[in-house]
This record gives sequence, C-alpha cells and structure tokens, in this order.
Amino acid sequence: MTIELATTVERIAAVIDDDPLAAVVHLRAHGDLVGPCEVAARVRSHRLTADEPPVMGGADAGPTPVEHALVALGSCWVMTLAFWASKLGVRVDTCRVVVNGQLDVRGFLGLPSGVRPGCTAVGLEVTLGGPETAETYGELVGIVDEHCPVRDIFTGSTPVTSSVRLV
Amino acid sequence: MTIELATTVERIAAVIDDDPLAAVVHLRAHGDLVGPCEVAARVRSHRLTADEPPVMGGADAGPTPVEHALVALGSCWVMTLAFWASKLGVRVDTCRVVVNGQLDVRGFLGLPSGVRPGCTAVGLEVTLGGPETAETYGELVGIVDEHCPVRDIFTGSTPVTSSVRLV
Repeated sequence: MTIELATTVERIAAVIDDDPLAAVVHLRAHGDLVGPCEVAARVRSHRLTADEPPVMGGADAGPTPVEHALVALGSCWVMTLAFWASKLGVRVDTCRVVVNGQLDVRGFLGLPSGVRPGCTAVGLEVTLGGPETAETYGELVGIVDEHCPVRDIFTGSTPVTSSVRLV
Repeated sequence: MTIELATTVERIAAVIDDDPLAAVVHLRAHGDLVGPCEVAARVRSHRLTADEPPVMGGADAGPTPVEHALVALGSCWVMTLAFWASKLGVRVDTCRVVVNGQLDVRGFLGLPSGVRPGCTAVGLEVTLGGPETAETYGELVGIVDEHCPVRDIFTGSTPVTSSVRLV
C-alpha cells in the first residue's frame, strides 16, 4: 500500500498555523467495572473490553489493561510511520509491528520487591517493506521514535491527577 | 457488585513467594497497517482496531492510539481498585472512571512549538459507590494511584527499544 496522507498533514498544519489553539485536542475514555475485574470501556462510538485471564481472577473477556497499552503503543508507532513516510515522500508498502512488554506483578500486588508497577522493559520489532534504501528507512524509524505520541507517553513522564466522587 | 478477588491475590502471592521469577510476565501485541492509517491489532485471541477520524485522514474504524492508551489507563485504574479493595477488605459496589487527556498535535506533526508528542495532561474522574467512609475510600484511591501499572507507565519513564527488519 502506498501511503498518501501528505495532503491531510499539510491541511492540518495550515489550520494550526492560523490558530495554534486548534492544535490542542481533548480526548476522553469511559470505563465501568462490570465483573470481578472486567471493565466495559467506551471512546466516542467505540466499545472495548478489558479483563484479566482466569489465573488472575478474570474471564478473559478482553486484553488486560497493560496489553491495551501495548496495542496503543504499537498502533501509534505504525500510524506515526504512515504520517511521516507520507510527509517525507518515503514509500512504505507494508508495515508490521510486534510489541513485547515485560512486567513484574509484584509491583502491582504490593509484594516486597522494590520493582515498579509498570513495565520494566518494552521492545518494538518492526517489519518494513518497500523500495527505499536501508539508510532511508533507518532515518525514518528515528523520526518515528521521536514523534510517536504513545511512545512519548511510555518513555516520558505525564502528570496524572485523580479526583473522586462518592455516590 | 461485591468484589471477591482476595483468594486470587493470596494464591498468586504464595506462588511468587516460592518462585520470584514467576512474577515476571511477558506480554505481546501485534499490529499491521491495513489502511491509510488503520491498524489491525491482535493480543492473544483478541482483535482490536486503531484508526484516525476523517479530519486526520482515516476512516474512524476504531479509537485513535492515544484514545487506546486512555482506555488502558482507565481500565487499569479500575482493575487495580478491584484488586486492592478485595485485598484490604474494603467493599466497593460500583466503580466508574472518565479519563480526560490533552494532546497538542504539533509535537506529533513536527511543527515548531517545543511541545512533546505525548499527552500534556491527564485527569481521572472516578465515581465510587459503597458503604465505607470517605476516609476509607480516600486511602484506597491513594493506594490505587501508587500500584496501578498503566498509571505508572504514564507518570514514570519506561525504556522502549525499536528494532527494524526490512523485507
């Protein structure tokens, strides 16, 4: 598949150039606990399920939350590549990614260990197909690593606040 | 719903106590670019879709990757609450979360701004129902913030490597 998003990117850039505040987007996701550890989630018109496998007390009705985070990372990396390949005029015919994440559940369970609750390591294995040189694709991968929003959420530090209402 | 996961947590803790290496889990997600910016993702037997809305050049076949990341965060927070409420004997009848994320797309698009590609701010609005005191739920929320794996991925810093194979 040849990726043709350049027009979209240029159009968005022109809008933002006129009004920088248009660059700020507000996203929202909803989640309800509907089983021992099953969560029914919604984003706009899209519905998703998160659950744990039976060994963790769930019914495996969907990926675990950390697996959802790996899907977010992998899909974001692939989309960022599609956008930047188009913007730079680099042809990409196929793009596939495998995301491997390692987690020590002692952090989540509060067991003595000193490990963090989140992933201790994450690796992206990308397979790219197309007619460009290895050097061109190497440069493209560096640019994608630098601009991928969810990769930045993983590698950087994002402030998260919690507010609670009792009913 | 009364949450009863205490037995599961205790069983896992006993296994890990015998063999700390059993605490390390390896997770994997797959993603393929199947449209201008649509990604078909898979985790074990579960299939998910990520896409962009038409304004970004996509067909809105699924949530955007950053929306997937917010689903991961919200579902993880709710599940962590379910586990810890059970572990501590705190009754929770209902738990609902809304996750709000703010993103400046200039970071993703590489437009001059100095902003990061990831979220600049994330807020969790939690609604809890049950018979315990506000103080008990307040303490529980603090413990959940501290032990939630995906919250830790957002607030902390996770090493992410990329390897590329050309075909």
